[in-house]
Amino acid sequence: MSSQRRSLVDSRHGEYRVLHEADLRDYLAALPEVAARLGGAPASWSISEVGDGNLNLVFIVKGAAGGVAVKQALPYVRLVGESWPLPLSRSHYEYLALTHQARLAPGLVPDVLHHNEALALVVMELLEPHIIMRKGLVAGTTYPRFVDDITTFLARTLFLSSDLAVTAAEKKEGIAAFAGNHALCKITEDLIFTDPYRIVEQNRWTQPWLDAIAAAFREDLDLHVAISRLKLKFLNAPEALIHGDLHTGSIMVTESQTKVIDPEFAFYGPMGFDIGAVIANLLMAYLASSGHKRSPGDRRAFEAWVLETVEGAWTDFVRKFLELWRTEAKGDAYPVTLFGGEAGAARLEAERQVYMARLFQDTVGFSAAKIIRRILGLAHNIDFELIEDPKRRAICEARSLRLARAMMVDAASFRTIGAVTKAARDARDWQPDFA
Amino acid sequence: MSSQRRSLVDSRHGEYRVLHEADLRDYLAALPEVAARLGGAPASWSISEVGDGNLNLVFIVKGAAGGVAVKQALPYVRLVGESWPLPLSRSHYEYLALTHQARLAPGLVPDVLHHNEALALVVMELLEPHIIMRKGLVAGTTYPRFVDDITTFLARTLFLSSDLAVTAAEKKEGIAAFAGNHALCKITEDLIFTDPYRIVEQNRWTQPWLDAIAAAFREDLDLHVAISRLKLKFLNAPEALIHGDLHTGSIMVTESQTKVIDPEFAFYGPMGFDIGAVIANLLMAYLASSGHKRSPGDRRAFEAWVLETVEGAWTDFVRKFLELWRTEAKGDAYPVTLFGGEAGAARLEAERQVYMARLFQDTVGFSAAKIIRRILGLAHNIDFELIEDPKRRAICEARSLRLARAMMVDAASFRTIGAVTKAARDARDWQPDFA
Repeated sequence: MSSQRRSLVDSRHGEYRVLHEADLRDYLAALPEVAARLGGAPASWSISEVGDGNLNLVFIVKGAAGGVAVKQALPYVRLVGESWPLPLSRSHYEYLALTHQARLAPGLVPDVLHHNEALALVVMELLEPHIIMRKGLVAGTTYPRFVDDITTFLARTLFLSSDLAVTAAEKKEGIAAFAGNHALCKITEDLIFTDPYRIVEQNRWTQPWLDAIAAAFREDLDLHVAISRLKLKFLNAPEALIHGDLHTGSIMVTESQTKVIDPEFAFYGPMGFDIGAVIANLLMAYLASSGHKRSPGDRRAFEAWVLETVEGAWTDFVRKFLELWRTEAKGDAYPVTLFGGEAGAARLEAERQVYMARLFQDTVGFSAAKIIRRILGLAHNIDFELIEDPKRRAICEARSLRLARAMMVDAASFRTIGAVTKAARDARDWQPDFA
Repeated sequence: MSSQRRSLVDSRHGEYRVLHEADLRDYLAALPEVAARLGGAPASWSISEVGDGNLNLVFIVKGAAGGVAVKQALPYVRLVGESWPLPLSRSHYEYLALTHQARLAPGLVPDVLHHNEALALVVMELLEPHIIMRKGLVAGTTYPRFVDDITTFLARTLFLSSDLAVTAAEKKEGIAAFAGNHALCKITEDLIFTDPYRIVEQNRWTQPWLDAIAAAFREDLDLHVAISRLKLKFLNAPEALIHGDLHTGSIMVTESQTKVIDPEFAFYGPMGFDIGAVIANLLMAYLASSGHKRSPGDRRAFEAWVLETVEGAWTDFVRKFLELWRTEAKGDAYPVTLFGGEAGAARLEAERQVYMARLFQDTVGFSAAKIIRRILGLAHNIDFELIEDPKRRAICEARSLRLARAMMVDAASFRTIGAVTKAARDARDWQPDFA
């Protein structure tokens, strides 16, 4: 039996092993659809491991005819090492989420070509010439398609998996299907909703400038109550199938395309967590931008675009979500039979606005939580990390923390997305006392 | 092979059939623990079918040494007939809930002696001389143990299955374990949260006196918004493993004992739904009481006891729930590490009060929903039904609807349980215009 065939058989027998280049070549050669897409002889394929995320191996494989991306989960957190084990089942949930999202929001996630649950492996179309959006934002690139695409993704994936669109039975089946992904949820529960607010060895921040703020956040009981309420909502509100990690590192872009990747944190959770992730990461891109300035005014147009994008991300999401609610409300919530006639329709429309206002409050709060964890917690982002001068970086981070604290503790005072962008502008103009 | 042995074998082979007296006798004779508890020769056991609920067969079996109760699910709704099919799996969920509740609140549910999933059958200890609490309330009996027992049941089953007590992983496993019980949830979603507010053939009410109120409720958009929000919460808030049908017909009592039965509607839902069910059914007992009066003042002491019981049900529940939170908070929500020191402890205690205030709002709303469905929906209760004079019954029902409407539409104005009992007293004194 050739090694190629043995490799395939092993995987079918449920034996996990970390794939190295040679194994992977054999494995892919045995998949007719993948081999045809790559083209040419397997020996001619180029294979490179490019994973720069926190958790997995990612291979890019190219042949004469085309390319594929291969993602394999490791049985531990790559960022930390084997001391932090993490179940391989996350690959199954990622596959489940990708295929679900592809149905709900066609064209906005990569096509899945193959999945092997035992090997915790997904083979996807290669996104080319897409780049990770966060890298583009650091470089000051604007993305004219982004608002339209991301709001389509958010509105469709969230609305169409919610009680507004599906029956309670279907929703409960969905919740159960993702319930096993709790180890990934636990990462969020710890790293976003708990650790940045207490002493934990793996926390880090830009020292010494942020020492005082980090200490203040660990003592700030208003903040601790607010983050605890958000955590309770994260634990207790299976409103929709959420992506669960929708930052700008999980989005690949060109000027004309947007693709959402890496939904391994997916589960049924609060919608505001996904919308908040998008907004938080745009706000960080905005407040980090001055740290990447090379000449006076060179980032001005970019920064204006980022704030417009924040506003568009919310307002277009709302418009699309409401449009779906008016036309595809096939779920068990808010039965239209209780809102008949003109007066009923008007009242239901008013109630939709109330629903969106509540969702906006959640979004503001979750957005704040996502900012704070990137500055005081374990996992940081290149928006800030690539600002070489640590004091300059700390100024951008301190402004972000100032904005985030206000958004979290006083979410109710932010009634519109315009209030958020105004507060972001004010934070941009604020000088921390160490500046 | 004797018919007795064949019966047992059939059941083990997963073949459902409705058990009749002779089959049941054979079946129980083959269960050593059950046969021993009954005592004597199987032929000497008395078997009678006593089910007066809406869904199942219930047999009481007595032998020389003791008795057992046998509950078998039918593949349809007994109240309606074979035209309304209902999955047998509810027996599995009832068994799961009973055993879970027995661990969390020992002594407050019947002991399970045997379960056969294929036959949808549970054999339990016979509760004797207990009666269904609702019958006792109609008769004007007071139950001095009730407040203490039901609040222990509520506080322990709700707290100990919530994110305050268990890890998020354990909670998600629990949610998934009960997710399949959606057909029973659907009954609640339709019969409690939707049908009473729209024209549905199976609705009924005391005609002609309540015609105008029923019509007004079908047009009342404030009510329709409020019930839709409650429905959304029922669909979307897996706070704890709830009983799901905790009315006074699901409680068996003596003067010295309380047992909660029939948790086949159990799933992870909002805590306020269970607490509200208890309070709603007490409020109905109170407002129906005048309909059972035989001589002036003969129900006065009973009625005073019922209102004290409403108040105690909430206040003792809160005391016990908070006590558990202070001593057994092993869950992922509200991590104590974020509330260290004296100031932190004080702030967490304040937040616990906020949590209970929110839960009280839910309880008031769900309580109202449970009242309305019993008067305008499909399933009525003997508190009202046994009032023979229909006009007199309609007066009691109209008062209950008046109270319930205020509680549902204006829940926020009820800040304390005293406000609820005061409103109940006011409703008791109110005369509908047809009176």
